[in-house]
Amino acid sequence: MLRIHGIPRSRAFRCIWAAEEAGLPYEVVPIGFASGFKLERPLAINPNNKIPALEDGDLVLFESLAINLHIAKKAGAPLMPSGDDESRVLQWTLWTATEVEAHVLRWGYNTYLKPPAERVPAEASAGKEALDLRLAVLEGELAKRPFLLGEAFTIADLNLACVLYAARANGYDLARFPKVVAWIDACLDRPAARRARALREG
Amino acid sequence: MLRIHGIPRSRAFRCIWAAEEAGLPYEVVPIGFASGFKLERPLAINPNNKIPALEDGDLVLFESLAINLHIAKKAGAPLMPSGDDESRVLQWTLWTATEVEAHVLRWGYNTYLKPPAERVPAEASAGKEALDLRLAVLEGELAKRPFLLGEAFTIADLNLACVLYAARANGYDLARFPKVVAWIDACLDRPAARRARALREG
Repeated sequence: MLRIHGIPRSRAFRCIWAAEEAGLPYEVVPIGFASGFKLERPLAINPNNKIPALEDGDLVLFESLAINLHIAKKAGAPLMPSGDDESRVLQWTLWTATEVEAHVLRWGYNTYLKPPAERVPAEASAGKEALDLRLAVLEGELAKRPFLLGEAFTIADLNLACVLYAARANGYDLARFPKVVAWIDACLDRPAARRARALREG
Repeated sequence: MLRIHGIPRSRAFRCIWAAEEAGLPYEVVPIGFASGFKLERPLAINPNNKIPALEDGDLVLFESLAINLHIAKKAGAPLMPSGDDESRVLQWTLWTATEVEAHVLRWGYNTYLKPPAERVPAEASAGKEALDLRLAVLEGELAKRPFLLGEAFTIADLNLACVLYAARANGYDLARFPKVVAWIDACLDRPAARRARALREG
């Protein structure tokens, strides 16, 4: 039984979605935020004191995208393909971490996450400008194939879509990127995604 | 034969080090920077137009840390262990990307990378403050074991050490973190690291 620490309205959502895609039994240990994005209580199993964290037997993991790679490995193909395609999954997951999430957060903190008085419009604009450059790259890739690796949805799609999900839900304008919109719709409409979203949005 | 695109005085250094650790034959296709951190010529094999990129037969990869995971997988254990330890490698590599590199860059751009007139001291301080918090976590982990996963050096150590390497070489003060200093010394003194560093520093 996977134990996912973190409320569904946090990055733990990503891991819940992954567990649903993998078809693995899991339980959610709810721990959320106090004011200022601090945890409401310490999470001793993660030295970073952040959510999510995963317990899988004796294994304890942090970093949401790495947790998802672990869950996908347990499920195997097509969620986690092997050989060169596994390397492509890792490439897109690192791309999500280095090229996408920082800009999503820079936009998001200054658009809806921070209290209105603390938001800096110039920071929100800079985040959007940087993210749009990366979305243009993604648009070009998704013009060649429906999912990041080809015809099949993999954990690489999940890891990228879950980072873009909150931005889109909070009004990020994707209209310039129709292939991205079609792809994220396809990801979020999957039965496993709908089950995970019901825990978060319901 | 691995083909690593990028000069050794770029993130391609990381992949050169990984290839040296893996004991795999490689060649470096030198491509560097024009002014403003733009590439001196387009790199068509990477849709992000960045270095490094890897060609391994028909496989083309971007993202330096993902390239290194691919190279390590080819070598196998101990550089890339299997099972739960592989998941731990992925965890520390994602931690490097999300918790470390952004802060290293925020400090570095405002300390030595940008032209002096463009540097913002408050940004350098904010980067250092954030990075020090993460280094304190790392210090605690390295008090328990010599390398990130245990007794053996793995690609997780390489991926983190290569991100901290440039900061340290450019004067980042690590004195508060003696376990981190001992660990980074152990990483950078490895024969493979010395061969890679000779290409960059020599």
